[in-house]
Amino acid sequence: MNSRYIALHPKVNHSRKKIQLSPPTILALGFAGLIVIGTFLLMLPMSANSNISLLEAAFTATSAVTVTGLVVVDTGTDFTMFGQLIIALLIQAGGLGLMTFAIVALIAIGGKIGFRQQIIATAAFNQTSWATVVQTAKAVIVFALIVESAGMLILFLRWLPEMAWQQALFHSFFYAISAFNNAGFALDANSLMPYVGDPTINIIITGLFITGGLGFGVWMDIWQQRRWRKLSIYSKALLTSVVLINVFAMLIIFILELDNPETLRSLTSSEQWWAAWFQATTTRTAGFNTIDISALEDSTTTLMLLLMFIGGGSLSTASGIKVMTFIVLVMATYAYLRQRDEVVLLGRTIPRNTVRKALALTLISVALIWIAIFLLTVLQHQPFLDVVFEAVSAFGTVGLSRGLTGELSVFGQVLIMVLMFVGRLGPLTMAYFLASPKPKHLGYPEVKVPIG
Amino acid sequence: MNSRYIALHPKVNHSRKKIQLSPPTILALGFAGLIVIGTFLLMLPMSANSNISLLEAAFTATSAVTVTGLVVVDTGTDFTMFGQLIIALLIQAGGLGLMTFAIVALIAIGGKIGFRQQIIATAAFNQTSWATVVQTAKAVIVFALIVESAGMLILFLRWLPEMAWQQALFHSFFYAISAFNNAGFALDANSLMPYVGDPTINIIITGLFITGGLGFGVWMDIWQQRRWRKLSIYSKALLTSVVLINVFAMLIIFILELDNPETLRSLTSSEQWWAAWFQATTTRTAGFNTIDISALEDSTTTLMLLLMFIGGGSLSTASGIKVMTFIVLVMATYAYLRQRDEVVLLGRTIPRNTVRKALALTLISVALIWIAIFLLTVLQHQPFLDVVFEAVSAFGTVGLSRGLTGELSVFGQVLIMVLMFVGRLGPLTMAYFLASPKPKHLGYPEVKVPIG
Ligand SMILES: [K+]
Ligand SMILES: [K+]
Repeated sequence: MNSRYIALHPKVNHSRKKIQLSPPTILALGFAGLIVIGTFLLMLPMSANSNISLLEAAFTATSAVTVTGLVVVDTGTDFTMFGQLIIALLIQAGGLGLMTFAIVALIAIGGKIGFRQQIIATAAFNQTSWATVVQTAKAVIVFALIVESAGMLILFLRWLPEMAWQQALFHSFFYAISAFNNAGFALDANSLMPYVGDPTINIIITGLFITGGLGFGVWMDIWQQRRWRKLSIYSKALLTSVVLINVFAMLIIFILELDNPETLRSLTSSEQWWAAWFQATTTRTAGFNTIDISALEDSTTTLMLLLMFIGGGSLSTASGIKVMTFIVLVMATYAYLRQRDEVVLLGRTIPRNTVRKALALTLISVALIWIAIFLLTVLQHQPFLDVVFEAVSAFGTVGLSRGLTGELSVFGQVLIMVLMFVGRLGPLTMAYFLASPKPKHLGYPEVKVPIG
Repeated sequence: MNSRYIALHPKVNHSRKKIQLSPPTILALGFAGLIVIGTFLLMLPMSANSNISLLEAAFTATSAVTVTGLVVVDTGTDFTMFGQLIIALLIQAGGLGLMTFAIVALIAIGGKIGFRQQIIATAAFNQTSWATVVQTAKAVIVFALIVESAGMLILFLRWLPEMAWQQALFHSFFYAISAFNNAGFALDANSLMPYVGDPTINIIITGLFITGGLGFGVWMDIWQQRRWRKLSIYSKALLTSVVLINVFAMLIIFILELDNPETLRSLTSSEQWWAAWFQATTTRTAGFNTIDISALEDSTTTLMLLLMFIGGGSLSTASGIKVMTFIVLVMATYAYLRQRDEVVLLGRTIPRNTVRKALALTLISVALIWIAIFLLTVLQHQPFLDVVFEAVSAFGTVGLSRGLTGELSVFGQVLIMVLMFVGRLGPLTMAYFLASPKPKHLGYPEVKVPIG
């Protein structure tokens, strides 16, 4: 049996042909199952204050499970607290990943985990060893709960003076989960705009989504090594890049928006810096906002498109092509221009296969986004920038919008749902599809072709 | 001496440091020189009917030499016939390449061509042997003159009934050169819109620019081999792709624009098909138009962005990343998804270095276009789609515009000039920069990094 495929129900198979599903397919089905359950729960009368259509419920469930945050109904007013709780749980399940929960559940009930589940889990974590998977899964859960709890506590104390304690408790619970998982779901239609200059909210929310968006691998590395020079090449490169990108983006946004009367100009100086910082970091791929995204300059929006496309760290709650993919692409181009055969990063050679993976992943991502933009322009008549922004935001599961989400036709909503699903599942499933190619020499003679 | 660099004026060198210029630098300087001469000639009182500013003259010269066709003044009314002649000669010089002329001139005067010139010429033609270069250069000139003359003759006969013969002669001369070189310069502000349904104009103009845009390599191959199965892999892949892309684009544009009252709906059925064909083929990278580009649907425009970015054949009068680069990228992604170690095209393996070249070229192109869009949005306040279209059109030296060219600020014009220059020179110079990398094993240990 091909180890890349798993026979499903081999005993009930009469035709001698086995139904074979690859782990990525099973993962996709798992996510789809979660979305179906979520849709059902959100359609219960106790979930919604007003009548929620099937499409609206499905869109919300997809957005929550894929930790995107694009919404067609208002989370804060159209859903009851029960509905909001369902959304928070869908976010947690989607953000930490189906597999974490499957593994933990299996371990918790003391059940033996089979070879099939091991393969699926190994794939989901982008790991090669089963022992590492179990260790990782446990660490992920513990880490997530500790960080979320800490964030929730501070948010609770921040909100206690201005809300009833029950409300403050639920708010802090919801936002801690939504932020750590980079989901971007908010209980206010204006996201976090009322808190544009609030230091606590800015620090805690960006702290939570940056922590989640860096990925568990980096935090495990930091936890185990403690010292900078002992960190892995991956951790060093990622941390350095994220700091540079965030600071650079903050400065650019600050400069570009300073004269914009609809964004920074009307704010105080400290509010301006907080807003620049928040909008710079939220693009990869948190999805909250403290200023009106549709009022931003086209130049800022163009910068955001790039940042949303890049996304966060691998094995994280962020999506996009991932920071390391972007670094590998840049270093591969640099190596080629320097006429070097090897792609070097911080004194180490990037394996050839990793470069090919980065190329394939990026091209597929660009192709998907282009197709989505094309189809949206065929069926919707909206400003081009809004369409591009929506497509990139959905693919990167960012959740920022210039207002197109509410204008989407039925087809448009389904398209965005597909994009969010593929955007969240894609890198995850492709990671497995593409991680272990079998070198197969086909023996074709080489041919020189001009290409530039 | 490093064979990649040529010492300039070694005899007047006092400091023992040689001034070294790489062939790409010399090529770029040559193109720049042509633009400076063109600017000077276009500023002569006998060139222009009205007062032409330095910037306008420089923009026109750059657009002509880079065979782009973006214009800030009207070629037909603002320039005299002398000015138009200058533009035609700049187009011819830019389209066929500086090197062809340099070589032919040297051969014609019986002068010995030195090693230095040989290297430059070899680089310009993306060839490795000097003998092939001379052969190619001659063939290019002969081929271009034959095709242009044939096109000019038919255009002359077509225009004779409706113009004075002198005017018909000049018109056919100008359009034959502009079309074969994919320059897109027209003597009418509406480009070829008056001829939207004219079979002769449609066939000859598209025939000329498709012929020039395929590249000399393919035509030499066809001339030498005569039979399809004997053609090189490159020729087969290119011809097949171009036919598929053109037919596919024509059908899509026909469908998308059929209900558009500003484009196809008001036309007769045969005019509609001619218009769909013309606009499908002009994007790679001719730049003429027979319907109003700014009136096209956003969906059609999105398709055109992709087609303009891809461009034409290598060693041709077209720009863009080139069709073969696009094919290599697609096949590399396909190979990766199929877990194959080799990138296969029509039963042959694409060398690893070619794949890396395609990756580097494409990433640099995307980066340049993104930076241009960003800068344009910083300094201009125009619809985003118009800005993106203008940047892609300039980089691909296409010359189609949704009307932004005339609205450009001084800085915007300079930016578009740089983009046209890099777009035309880039692939040419990069071809040399990137063509012969020295495999240099740096001995860094490999490191596994997660990227998806
Ligand atoms: K998000
Ligand atoms: K052109």
